[in-house]
Parts: sequence; C-alpha cells; structure tokens
Amino acid sequence: MTELTADDVVWRNGRFATFDPRNPRPYGLLEESALVVRDGRIAGLVEERAVAGHVGRTVDLAGRLVTPGLIDCHTHLVFAGSRAQEWEQRLNGVSYKTISDNGGGINATVRATRESSEDALLQLAEGRLQRLMAEGVTTLEVKSGYGLDLENERKMLNVARRLADRHAVEISPTLLAAHAIPPEYKGRADEYIDLVCDVILPTLWQTQRFDAVDAFCENVGFTPAQTERVFRKAQALGVAVKGHVEQLSDQGGAQLVSRYQGLSADHIEYLDEAGVAAMAAAGTVAVLLPGAFYFLNETRKPPVSLLRQYQVPMAVATDFNPGTSPFASLHLAMNMACVKFGLTPEEAWTGVTRHAARALGRQHTHGQLAAGYVADFAIWDAQHPVEMVYEPSRNPLWQRVFRGEVRA
Amino acid sequence: MTELTADDVVWRNGRFATFDPRNPRPYGLLEESALVVRDGRIAGLVEERAVAGHVGRTVDLAGRLVTPGLIDCHTHLVFAGSRAQEWEQRLNGVSYKTISDNGGGINATVRATRESSEDALLQLAEGRLQRLMAEGVTTLEVKSGYGLDLENERKMLNVARRLADRHAVEISPTLLAAHAIPPEYKGRADEYIDLVCDVILPTLWQTQRFDAVDAFCENVGFTPAQTERVFRKAQALGVAVKGHVEQLSDQGGAQLVSRYQGLSADHIEYLDEAGVAAMAAAGTVAVLLPGAFYFLNETRKPPVSLLRQYQVPMAVATDFNPGTSPFASLHLAMNMACVKFGLTPEEAWTGVTRHAARALGRQHTHGQLAAGYVADFAIWDAQHPVEMVYEPSRNPLWQRVFRGEVRA
Ligand SMILES: [Zn+2]
Ligand SMILES: [Zn+2]
Repeated sequence: MTELTADDVVWRNGRFATFDPRNPRPYGLLEESALVVRDGRIAGLVEERAVAGHVGRTVDLAGRLVTPGLIDCHTHLVFAGSRAQEWEQRLNGVSYKTISDNGGGINATVRATRESSEDALLQLAEGRLQRLMAEGVTTLEVKSGYGLDLENERKMLNVARRLADRHAVEISPTLLAAHAIPPEYKGRADEYIDLVCDVILPTLWQTQRFDAVDAFCENVGFTPAQTERVFRKAQALGVAVKGHVEQLSDQGGAQLVSRYQGLSADHIEYLDEAGVAAMAAAGTVAVLLPGAFYFLNETRKPPVSLLRQYQVPMAVATDFNPGTSPFASLHLAMNMACVKFGLTPEEAWTGVTRHAARALGRQHTHGQLAAGYVADFAIWDAQHPVEMVYEPSRNPLWQRVFRGEVRA
Repeated sequence: MTELTADDVVWRNGRFATFDPRNPRPYGLLEESALVVRDGRIAGLVEERAVAGHVGRTVDLAGRLVTPGLIDCHTHLVFAGSRAQEWEQRLNGVSYKTISDNGGGINATVRATRESSEDALLQLAEGRLQRLMAEGVTTLEVKSGYGLDLENERKMLNVARRLADRHAVEISPTLLAAHAIPPEYKGRADEYIDLVCDVILPTLWQTQRFDAVDAFCENVGFTPAQTERVFRKAQALGVAVKGHVEQLSDQGGAQLVSRYQGLSADHIEYLDEAGVAAMAAAGTVAVLLPGAFYFLNETRKPPVSLLRQYQVPMAVATDFNPGTSPFASLHLAMNMACVKFGLTPEEAWTGVTRHAARALGRQHTHGQLAAGYVADFAIWDAQHPVEMVYEPSRNPLWQRVFRGEVRA
C-alpha cells in the first residue's frame, strides 16, 4: 500500500474475517488491524500502529467483527403473485397435478409477472432486496425467467437494473429465458428454444447488460441438447453461462456447463463424480441451494465430500423464489447448508463471500477484504462469524458499507 | 355484548382470523367486522354497521388481517453463554464425547448461567424476547433448568418475572429443575431428584409463582420413575405438570404426563398410539418442536396422523434454547412444522394460538379473538395467515396489541 493520504478512510480497531486465501487462519482472520479505504476500494489492511497518525477520517470499530459484504449468487428476486395458497392446498392433500391443471405452479408466477407493470415488479422486488441487504448483502445475482418472451424477459431485466440504480447494492443480472416452457409453447420446447436463441438472447444482449445466461436442465425442464443450444448461442455472443442442473435427476448437466467453462453449476444434488471432476477441471463453482432442498423435503444431498476432495469451490445462495425457496435470508441459507449438507460454518461463510464472488465472475474484485477489492463490507455486533450461521433469526448487523460508505 | 360505551375502543374494517372453534370457516375467519375492546379484554366482534355511530376511539384497520397474539408455549429463553463454537467443532468432526469431556454441552450452559448475574441474564433474555415480540408474540412460556440448584433456579425464575414486569408481554414461568443432572450430582440422579422434590420445588413454590413443573424424561435425562417423583410432588402442591418426553426414545413419558393430567407432552417424536390415546383422554396438548428436530437432523417424526385421529390438540413452539434449537422465530417454527411434519398452515397457526393457550392452561382467556378473551392481538400487512408460514423471513407485522394497547 502506498502512503496514507488525508482522503483515505481508516476503519480501525476491528477484527477482520478477510477470507483472503493467503491468510492461513480460519476465516482469514486478522486482528489488531485497520482497513484503509481509498476511492471506494480497499487500499490495504495494515497494523494498527501504521495508522496512528492518520489525519483523515477514522472510524473506531470498537473491536467489532468485519466481514466482506455478503454475496447471494443465485436469486429469482423479481416476480409477482404468491404461491402460498397453492402450497397450503398441497398440505391439505390437493395433488400437484390438480394444482397445475388449475393454472398453478410456475405458470401462475409467469402469468402474474407478465401481467405486472415494471413499476409494480420493482416495488415487490425492493421489499425482498431490503431483507437481504438488512443481513449484510452487498452484491446479489438476479435472474429473469418468469417472462419467457422477449418483452417480459426485458421487463424483468429492467427491474434488475433499476434495483441497482436505486439501492446501494451491486446486481449481477442473469438471463434465464430457458427457465420453463411458456404455456403458449406447450409441447413445443424446441420451438421455444429457437425463440430464446434467435430472438430473446441476441436481442436483449444488444440492449441489456446481463452477466450470464442460465438454463434449467432437468427432466421437468429442458433436455441437455436444448440447454446446449442456449449455451452455444451464449458462447457465440461471448456471454458466460451457468446452469440449474442435477437438482432432481442426473442429466449430465454439470458436465455440460463445464464444457462451456460455466461460472457455476447450481443445485447439483444428483451430481456424480464425473461431474465433480469436470467442474474441477473447468473451474466451475458448485452453488448449493439448501433452501429448496429443505422446502421440497428432498433427501438426496449434494456430494459435499467429493466437492471437497476435488477442491471445487462451494458457494451457498438463497435461491429465493416464489415456488420452492421462499426464504430471503442468506443467514438461514448458511444455517441450512451446515445443518442439512454438513458444511462447516467457515465453508458456509466462504460460500457467501469468496466463492460466491467467483460464481459471479467477480473473484478479483469482490468477496474478500484485501487490497484492490471493492470496499463492500459488513460490520457486526458479534465476536465470531459462526454466530450468524448458528442463530440465523438474530441479525447482529451493525453497519453495511458499500463502496466505502455506510449505506442502509 | 352490552351496548357500546364511549370508553370502548373499536378496531374496525379488519379481517379477523379468530381461531374461535365455533366459527366453521378456516382460521375462524370473520370479515366486515369490528372488534370491540373494553378494559383490556375483547368485549365482542360485531358487524361493521353496529359500530357506525361509535363516539369513542376507533381504529381503521384498512382491511388488514388481525390474528390473536402469538403464543410460544415452550422456550428456554433465559441462559448465558453460547454453544455456537461447540457446534462448529462438531461440524469440523470433533466428537460429542470430546466436546462433553471438555465441559461442553448442557453443562457449559449451566456453568455460564450459574456464573451470570440476574441482571446479565435479564439483558441477554431481553434481546431474545424482543425478536419474538417483533413477530407478534404476546404470551410465552419461559423455563428454568440451567440453574439446577435452589439459588440458580430461583435466579432464572426471577429473570422470567422481571421480563414480564418490563415488557408488554405475558410470561408463563415453568420450573424445570429436572432438566439435567447437575455436574456435582454426576452418577447420583436419585439424590438430585431428592433435592428437587424436597428443596427446590417446595421452596420456590413458596416464594415464586410458576405455572407448571416440567421434567426431561429420556434415556439421557431422567427415568420415568424419577420423573414421576417430581410430578407427584407437584401434584401434592397443586402445581400443573408437563414433560419433555419421547424425543429420542419411547419411555412412556406421555402416558406418565397424562396420568397426572399434564398440560402438555412436548417433542413426542417417538410417541406410540397408546400414548396418543392417553393424551386424548387426559386433554393433554401435543407440543411439536420442529426447530430441534431440524437442528438435530432427526428423521423420526411425531405421529401427526394419530394425533389428528384422536383429536389431540397440537401446539407448535420454538423450543428456543442454546444447544438444540437456536431459532427465536415462531414464524420459522410454523414453517418447519408444515415442511417437516406435514401440518397444514391452519394447524400451525392454531398451534401458536388456541392450542398453545391450552398448553399453558390459558384456553379460556388467550389464543382466540372472542368475547371475554384478553385483547392481545397482532395486526398484519397481509392478506392471509398462510403468508407468515410460507415466507417466515418476511415479517409483515404492522402493530402488536397487548391488553388493548399498541405496544412495541
Ligand atoms: Zn434457481
Ligand atoms: Zn425444551
């Protein structure tokens, strides 16, 4: 780090869980140190005595814990309608088929989202965003995927962009046009994939920034061949890919994602060893989504031991969505990742910081407290990061800092 | 209801989920009605037009949903210390025996609680209480059980009483001296039960109000014979009983509780049909604690179908405690009761209102919106009660009303 200047802001007297892999301590812990912010970036972490004579702004953290801002790398934050009453019907014994025949399931969300104005969607998404931000989230991914036609997918991505414009948060938008077969294409999945590849993807890529293209590869979603068509188109345009894969069955989706050097393979309960090896070779992140696992009462768990053995980075995300994971809490997702999948609390934390950043292609700028990284961090009235994982309904966030500034 | 007087407060234009069993609609729903409060009690629910000319205070609920105040009928809210790092050790592969040999487990909580001052315990409990109250809780049970000697059990009950004095909440204290064998009685459980029966229970009953006596009947707790000694003493003093029973094995604990006309049998994952029948005959409430079931990764579920068949009232509670259920959220407990145990949302709601009131012996005064009941209610920015169950991380509480007054 170059010399301190009067414009630097010094955050001193903190305990820093840096998640810097060069630091061998658990959580990359660094004590008796100060964090220096310059122009919205972290200029460095230095010993307390190095900032003793600082003439610029200094914040005394009074020994509080500081972590990177949390990153939720898989959300479906933008939608209208509620599936709560449909869930109640299921718990009262109504079959999924009856509900689906009556227009329930994802089609209900698609219909409500299509019928909503952009402003109405924005307002709904803002409530959910605020709950995530209140837990220390500073970056999140937001998928489209309930529009399923050009105009409505555009509308959803517009909402994602406006969320970022209006709030102190970074949003990584993902085009998930290949989320489900829209009702008007029922029985004509290949034709819908034509629309995605020939119209939706290239058109929106012209005018809308999105970071990646996603697809739902599953026996109740799109086949590997259909998914690959989407990935090929994305690759031709130079857009990164990722996939909802191996959630309910092993379709080889993670290997497919890996062949396209995908950012992440998400869900992966049914992932086999060949898939793990492919992800390791490609540098693809394993995104674990325990909220959906819990809510759907699944029993098959992702192959955590194999992922560790092959050193595949594991991220943890909320998968917040109206049908299968109605939990806008990354703390709860961390808890579930430990309780249900056996992650250690440090793995869960790394999964919402460093590895989540990698899942969004931001591993060089986000998810660590280290020189050169964005100054997005969370300050906690807590002694140790395990507290937020152990007791998710208690939120000890003291301040959320975005680009070096305290922002609610 | 007698005529309205100018002192009556009218809450009009609401949707009331009354949980009044005389109302056959789901949740006892009542629309286009007004609730009349007189002297901290509900004077009645009447048609809108009946309050049109009311000259006293009137609150326009603007169509909001009103439910009874939530009742958490099983908590261990008062304790010191944290077991989070011990949990982290377990997830890192350290055995329970090693942790226990190093003074972990419940003994760690007992030690920390004994070492804490009453004021320090009060402050810790207040944070937890506030999280429950923020979700609409107006009555909760608070157990002793980490003191395990006369003075420290007294200290815990003092904290429970002071919580009620300082906050707009009703607290039902329970003496749980028979929670665990204290370290100084290791290997001498019967002698500890002597202390409970001869000293702790009768002494504290002289000077401390508690509503019930509880015991942990389990192969890792007290035997049925030891539990019965405690119940017999309680019965002789005229104190109601309840039990932590059938959590990890079938000890016949629920039948034992039922023989003493116990208020509730709690946990009951291993309950058999004879136990269900005994509870039905005795009017004992089944208190389901899905937080501990989830957190301990249990697989054996309580016999919900049998409980329905025998019409045993089912309550749902947090079991908030530092070792096995660190979730101070009754909304999350309702969600888990539905997801993990298959309750319907209406059953979950009835379990935190009417049936929870019965578990605390308050079925004639609490847990319903009906004439004569205390005016404890929760007003929600929600359309339907299922919302709080479906999406527990979103808390749409608008106002919490205790004894007819809006109180944070
Ligand atoms: Zn998803
Ligand atoms: Zn308990």
